[in-house]
Amino acid sequence: MEKKIPHKIYISESEMPKAWFNIKACMKEQHEPFINPKTMKPCTEDDLRPVFCDEVIKQELNTTDELIPIPQGIQDLYHMYRPSPLCRAYFLEKALGTPAKIYYKFEGNNTSGSHKLNSAMAQVYYAKEQGITSLTTETGAGQWGTALSMACAFCGIDLKVYMVKVSSEQKPHRKEVIRTYGAEVIPSPSNTTKVGRSILEKMPNTGGSLGCAISEAVEVALETENCRYVLGSVLDHVLLHQTVIGLESKTALEKYGETPDIVIGCCGGGSNFGGLIAPFMADKIKGKAKTTFIGVEPASCPSLTRGKYAYDFCDTGKMTPLAKMYTLGSGFMPSPNHSGGLRYHGMSPIISKLYHDGYMEARTVEQSKVFEAAEIFARTEGILPAPESSHAIRATIDEALKCKESGEAKTILFGLTGTGYFDMSAYKNFNDGNMSDYIPTDEDLEEGFKTLPKVE
Amino acid sequence: MEKKIPHKIYISESEMPKAWFNIKACMKEQHEPFINPKTMKPCTEDDLRPVFCDEVIKQELNTTDELIPIPQGIQDLYHMYRPSPLCRAYFLEKALGTPAKIYYKFEGNNTSGSHKLNSAMAQVYYAKEQGITSLTTETGAGQWGTALSMACAFCGIDLKVYMVKVSSEQKPHRKEVIRTYGAEVIPSPSNTTKVGRSILEKMPNTGGSLGCAISEAVEVALETENCRYVLGSVLDHVLLHQTVIGLESKTALEKYGETPDIVIGCCGGGSNFGGLIAPFMADKIKGKAKTTFIGVEPASCPSLTRGKYAYDFCDTGKMTPLAKMYTLGSGFMPSPNHSGGLRYHGMSPIISKLYHDGYMEARTVEQSKVFEAAEIFARTEGILPAPESSHAIRATIDEALKCKESGEAKTILFGLTGTGYFDMSAYKNFNDGNMSDYIPTDEDLEEGFKTLPKVE
Repeated sequence: MEKKIPHKIYISESEMPKAWFNIKACMKEQHEPFINPKTMKPCTEDDLRPVFCDEVIKQELNTTDELIPIPQGIQDLYHMYRPSPLCRAYFLEKALGTPAKIYYKFEGNNTSGSHKLNSAMAQVYYAKEQGITSLTTETGAGQWGTALSMACAFCGIDLKVYMVKVSSEQKPHRKEVIRTYGAEVIPSPSNTTKVGRSILEKMPNTGGSLGCAISEAVEVALETENCRYVLGSVLDHVLLHQTVIGLESKTALEKYGETPDIVIGCCGGGSNFGGLIAPFMADKIKGKAKTTFIGVEPASCPSLTRGKYAYDFCDTGKMTPLAKMYTLGSGFMPSPNHSGGLRYHGMSPIISKLYHDGYMEARTVEQSKVFEAAEIFARTEGILPAPESSHAIRATIDEALKCKESGEAKTILFGLTGTGYFDMSAYKNFNDGNMSDYIPTDEDLEEGFKTLPKVE
Repeated sequence: MEKKIPHKIYISESEMPKAWFNIKACMKEQHEPFINPKTMKPCTEDDLRPVFCDEVIKQELNTTDELIPIPQGIQDLYHMYRPSPLCRAYFLEKALGTPAKIYYKFEGNNTSGSHKLNSAMAQVYYAKEQGITSLTTETGAGQWGTALSMACAFCGIDLKVYMVKVSSEQKPHRKEVIRTYGAEVIPSPSNTTKVGRSILEKMPNTGGSLGCAISEAVEVALETENCRYVLGSVLDHVLLHQTVIGLESKTALEKYGETPDIVIGCCGGGSNFGGLIAPFMADKIKGKAKTTFIGVEPASCPSLTRGKYAYDFCDTGKMTPLAKMYTLGSGFMPSPNHSGGLRYHGMSPIISKLYHDGYMEARTVEQSKVFEAAEIFARTEGILPAPESSHAIRATIDEALKCKESGEAKTILFGLTGTGYFDMSAYKNFNDGNMSDYIPTDEDLEEGFKTLPKVE
């Protein structure tokens, strides 16, 4: 199997990005600004300062600089686990019998098991520089919580993680990883916050949601001295940090004269997808490429494909600014039989805007089909993928099989965001034939939409 | 942190080894031959043929060829997950304040979470070539079982895995990974074999042992048509396959003009250690280097440091040939509070011989010290290590701290054999302060020695 293109393409450490790629500077129209729900006016830096670190607020509001330098201190932290490999899926291609060339950027080869470390390292570094001594956050599938606990361990910062209760029960071992890195894990909703107590009173048996965990983490950050909140997805600065994925992929592909016809990623809050597509999307916006972009979401939490493009709160407790995005309503909670992450009610404002303006496609997949794809991938490429990432695998396999029918040798790039080592309860359901699908009815969605705020 | 030597050194796919390194061809004296317990004469190829595949028997008995070509088909399989990175532990060095230069070869970046895939791929490939349709094996910590299930999935061969009962209880999720790759997992001792039933009758509450699981797997292989047994450690051919670890490490170090002063690895059955040290040991034997080699074993299962150098069975059921090795007796079972792998009663005959002839050192460490080292490593280098691998980390940290005292800038290479993602129950005990150490008394060891066979 001597081929010109190796199975794994590693760029050298000196080729790693020195600046993040700010896709907003290329977009013809910006997404609507965040709105302060108290004043109903666009958020200023001052509005955001009690919650977020100063430097990330600047990044959040920056729409003009295409390249934002990565401080040397963050580049040093990235060296711990980057560059990640860009892999050619020779084994999968052969198993499918497709003429398509399939590449995946594998972000799971670090202990967080995902891409989340890319933003965790950046945000914790900025917090440390600002003299912040403790941080709070939420986590769903647990990857973000693990990543942040790792970053906090390296930088010497205290951390409280509000973990969606159903995930903390499905994944007790994630909790131990986070504890090994020295952070505290609290299942959400909890009795430690006002918003948590209020939700528990109304719904004592709820499995929780990301939106609810965010509310609890924000409340603690606001009420603790020298403490800030950090978010692992959705916001523009998180997408910005994740652009190392797309930038490294582009550098690696260019070494072999390859350009993708299709770029595929799973969409929960949108940060990995946004980070993967950013530099390729810039080429499309500038008319240099005709790439197809496909965001894949679970049928059980279809914010892009069945949500409304509207102003909404980022959290269930309605404490955050309002963002214009595709949303199912902050009161929406996915069915308890939904496995893994991708359970957020909204979608990154950048991704929402790109989708709204026709630069990308979106589709949903059901979880039994997702695990079927995961198993095919594990048995051919050797990596046991996270359920989240397997949404992208499903769509990639579907596109590769279309190529098989049409005979087209398209180049497909997808984001393999993480590994499924902490998702074995879900795999057990699949292995036992007990995996059920759930597609919310229009009536279910209407209940969520009722929680949307009224904005003129 | 711009340095000449990168954090991770990847050799290119074309630089990967094309042949395994047979250390026996360099050794001045060979280890004693295997003995057939029925005839009490050295084992012939015919003696081994009912149990093992033909090609690995040839490798097992080969003492003359220094290089044994890796078939192209196995090289292709290795491309799925190799080369593995050789990492410079800059972050750990800094945290320890040591002048030592620490390198580790990281074998955990694949779904088996360990180096075990190196021999699994080879053995399953040879079985397939020979027309074998099913395989049996044992697994302790679960890494070998996972690796073999992956290799069997790629090659389309049925697999039964006898998993040490205490491990299968500590690690239910390992079982699901193995099932995802299509294999069957049976906790050992079980009612599916004569030897299992006999052990259960005598010790209904036993947590099992690797030796016992081996007996069950061998029994099934002997009684099933077109079925063979595969072993994940101890034997010469397994060490041979693992030499890709040492060969890649040497190629990577030579690129930067580095030669190790000390090479450290954990020792269970001895295969990862043997594979890591082989090409460096050859230089020492040939008088080209003065490297120190340190094998590290758990205080609770001290075969090299407190065992006898004697002929013994490789399994509890006394079905295998006799091997001359350091052993605690095939009846020895480590204390149930011992976490993870490295619970085998014996030691690779090659490693035993090298130790006996003074080419290497051995030492024991207690598990609370091992997990302490694991936590330091996780929090500095970012990788959550397997308990087994953490034995090597402990010894490396100890050596690096000696360098700090003496001011010597020694170059240390250690084998980071795997990740601890499926060992979180053990980490939980450590995080909760519930980790206890256990050192067998001389009387405990005498009980094991009583099970040694009498050999003239």
